[in-house]
Amino acid sequence: MKLERFREIALDFCGLDDENPVLVGVSGGPDSLCLIDALARCDFKVVVAHFDHRLRAESGEDARMVQAYAAQRGLPFVLGSGAVAQYAAEAHASLEEAARFLRYQFLFEQARQLRAQAVAVGHTGDDQVETVLMHFLRGAGLAGLKGMAFRDFLADWSAEIPVVRPLLAFWREDTVQYCRENGLSPVMDASNQNTVFFRNRMRHDVIPMLETLNPQFRQNIWRMTQVLAGDEAVVQAAVEAVWQRSFEQQGEDALALRVGELKNQPVGLQRAMLRRAAACLDPGLRDVDYAAVERGVQLLRSAADGQADLVHGLRLVIEGDRLWVTRKAELPLEDTWLQMIGPDCDFFVPGEFPLAARWKVSARWVEKENIPHSLRETSASDEAWLDADCFLRTLQIRRARPGDRFQPLGMKDHSMKVSDIWVNQKLPRRARKDWPLLACDDAILWIPGFRPAHAYRITSETRRALHLRVFREDDFS
Amino acid sequence: MKLERFREIALDFCGLDDENPVLVGVSGGPDSLCLIDALARCDFKVVVAHFDHRLRAESGEDARMVQAYAAQRGLPFVLGSGAVAQYAAEAHASLEEAARFLRYQFLFEQARQLRAQAVAVGHTGDDQVETVLMHFLRGAGLAGLKGMAFRDFLADWSAEIPVVRPLLAFWREDTVQYCRENGLSPVMDASNQNTVFFRNRMRHDVIPMLETLNPQFRQNIWRMTQVLAGDEAVVQAAVEAVWQRSFEQQGEDALALRVGELKNQPVGLQRAMLRRAAACLDPGLRDVDYAAVERGVQLLRSAADGQADLVHGLRLVIEGDRLWVTRKAELPLEDTWLQMIGPDCDFFVPGEFPLAARWKVSARWVEKENIPHSLRETSASDEAWLDADCFLRTLQIRRARPGDRFQPLGMKDHSMKVSDIWVNQKLPRRARKDWPLLACDDAILWIPGFRPAHAYRITSETRRALHLRVFREDDFS
Repeated sequence: MKLERFREIALDFCGLDDENPVLVGVSGGPDSLCLIDALARCDFKVVVAHFDHRLRAESGEDARMVQAYAAQRGLPFVLGSGAVAQYAAEAHASLEEAARFLRYQFLFEQARQLRAQAVAVGHTGDDQVETVLMHFLRGAGLAGLKGMAFRDFLADWSAEIPVVRPLLAFWREDTVQYCRENGLSPVMDASNQNTVFFRNRMRHDVIPMLETLNPQFRQNIWRMTQVLAGDEAVVQAAVEAVWQRSFEQQGEDALALRVGELKNQPVGLQRAMLRRAAACLDPGLRDVDYAAVERGVQLLRSAADGQADLVHGLRLVIEGDRLWVTRKAELPLEDTWLQMIGPDCDFFVPGEFPLAARWKVSARWVEKENIPHSLRETSASDEAWLDADCFLRTLQIRRARPGDRFQPLGMKDHSMKVSDIWVNQKLPRRARKDWPLLACDDAILWIPGFRPAHAYRITSETRRALHLRVFREDDFS
Repeated sequence: MKLERFREIALDFCGLDDENPVLVGVSGGPDSLCLIDALARCDFKVVVAHFDHRLRAESGEDARMVQAYAAQRGLPFVLGSGAVAQYAAEAHASLEEAARFLRYQFLFEQARQLRAQAVAVGHTGDDQVETVLMHFLRGAGLAGLKGMAFRDFLADWSAEIPVVRPLLAFWREDTVQYCRENGLSPVMDASNQNTVFFRNRMRHDVIPMLETLNPQFRQNIWRMTQVLAGDEAVVQAAVEAVWQRSFEQQGEDALALRVGELKNQPVGLQRAMLRRAAACLDPGLRDVDYAAVERGVQLLRSAADGQADLVHGLRLVIEGDRLWVTRKAELPLEDTWLQMIGPDCDFFVPGEFPLAARWKVSARWVEKENIPHSLRETSASDEAWLDADCFLRTLQIRRARPGDRFQPLGMKDHSMKVSDIWVNQKLPRRARKDWPLLACDDAILWIPGFRPAHAYRITSETRRALHLRVFREDDFS
């Protein structure tokens, strides 16, 4: 292992500087001992951090060895320890997961306290190949096949302090040789041989076997990871661009994307968008099932109203141009919708009537001389001017009923079913049930948000007007 | 194997119709026999094609068996055969490569003659997994890891007739079971057991071993191929977009891309652009060496003039804003450059003097009354107007010499080295050697393509002008 190349990698690929402290996780094995020693020799400001997992009787000796090494080299040393077995039992996690969790918790806490520029760990090219092979066996996508990076932010731990892996460009045997050449005596962690069963089968059985088929296997996989990491960045950039264009809204239980932006995208991007949407609602989600994503893609490509189950209780719903990802049976009501919250009832003029989401309907009489000369055009949907002489004093505000008909302003000869108006206006079905109508006896005067009734329009004969309006309580218009 | 699902896949994923003939390659093994039988039962218009590789004594029997099957089902049958061993020896290819080459040659020739919509082959999900595993072992990128497609155009064979693989969604054991259930008696190709050594090690040793580690291994890899094919399409779309923006020119031995468009792209796209550029110049090229691509990326990111070897005698050269990929030691001369083709010599006025690429320099005297009132601005680079009284009758046209100095029009107080003018104008080094200068004794009058000399500018005193011009023979301006 050439120290010069190591230093280049630490600077250029890991992005380390030699002014700020680097916290180095040191188990005492050849990888991490080589790492701390090489970083120190290259004049990086290292702090030695050891976490005692207390899983083996001799773990205290490892800690003392690492501490002695730090003392001998005059390097600052921090020691942590945790009740791994107890944590594993409490969190229903494997010993390995629990150990990793407590170790990283310790490392990042220390790094924050020390204002370290990074946490450095001793993963080698062999760890990379083992990791990628394990991902391959479970059919991982690009994110898994690209393996670990020289410099990376672990979302679970810190958005500011990266984890860096300067040894990723070297093999495990390089670190063993480095220790030998530099008089370092690593501890041989017995757990390497036993606890991490699956990884060890890779290391001791599968990779040597694959190397008999292709002696360049490890080198090939290592290069593959570099190429795929580049490809993944390209895909991620494309995903980000489409996400920006198609994202519409997100609440706690649901988010909405624009179907129009998504339906003609390549299937690779559609899959990525579904996975990302799921991860937005369920940040702990690691993998979205292949079949679930394919169901979602099929729904999306149909671009027709419909539903599909996604994963972990998340559902996909297409409603018009919206693709909802939601964990509730009911989609959220839009706060731009007018929705009655109480029962149907009388509505006195002048007066106000409250709706959901801080909306209100108001009504007042306006004498002829105060009617604006140029009424807003017929499409203005937040108010209606009607000829008051046509009405009794009491109006009703109520929901639509089967058979309700309505003749909108400008439609001279015939009336329409209210239900057809909903469809024409593309009002989502679940918004229709509680949408308010203003009525007088059997006649519908106005559907707030749409046009007023033709029969009650203002004419030159009008002597007094009924002015109806919807507004939000925080609107001062 | 459900015939209904098979038919869906043939229609939707393979894009087959049931009106035009499909040429089906049938070895007689369970895969291809299942394929032809299922296609025929689903009412596709199939033609049975068998290619006798004559590598085994019993190969004639396979042919007769396939022919008998076709006759019994009333299906059209075509038979081909080739001297595989001889071809392999002549082409220095392996028996497997030679067999594949001659077989596909036969299939596509027949497909063209029959105006077939596609060539169907019997690859199963197992073939897919074996292929991808082999690609994985050699560290292939996305293009290799995505495996085979349901529908694909093989660049070597046809841009119009696709190869389709309806069995890709089924396992080999499904086809064996299909044959059993439908009374078909496939031949067991002995070569499966022997000749294709590497693939057979996958099939019989490696995959069963990996399945002990993950029983879902084959299923996982199959799904992985589908996901990665989607990702690859996203990458390819991004590559295509950047290619369009950065492509500048291509000749037989060299092509040029714009450095400015490439240098800030993500490394994944830079790699892809280099691979694509190499493939443009060398269409037979399958793989570009990892290290070669990394050298190229490094050169590109430097964005400074320099060179790097790529692969197969191709070189990368950055020259100003151009990234050249070239197979020649010399880059092509630009035909927009002015280049002397003969020796330095005298130049008589009036007269013309030929340069490379159909360029010419012309000179003439112009009397005062014919000098245009508003001379084109000083930056006009294809002509120069000079005060003729300053000259003898004979000019020289010659190359630059060490120490040559020049005072361009508008620069009043001092002169510049000609070599500095080249640098300022970013004229590529290799264009400078043969660039013509117009001189009179020791004074440089004009560097064609740049400004004329300040000392000889037209003034109100001028009585006669020397008008110099460069033009292309096919310019009629």
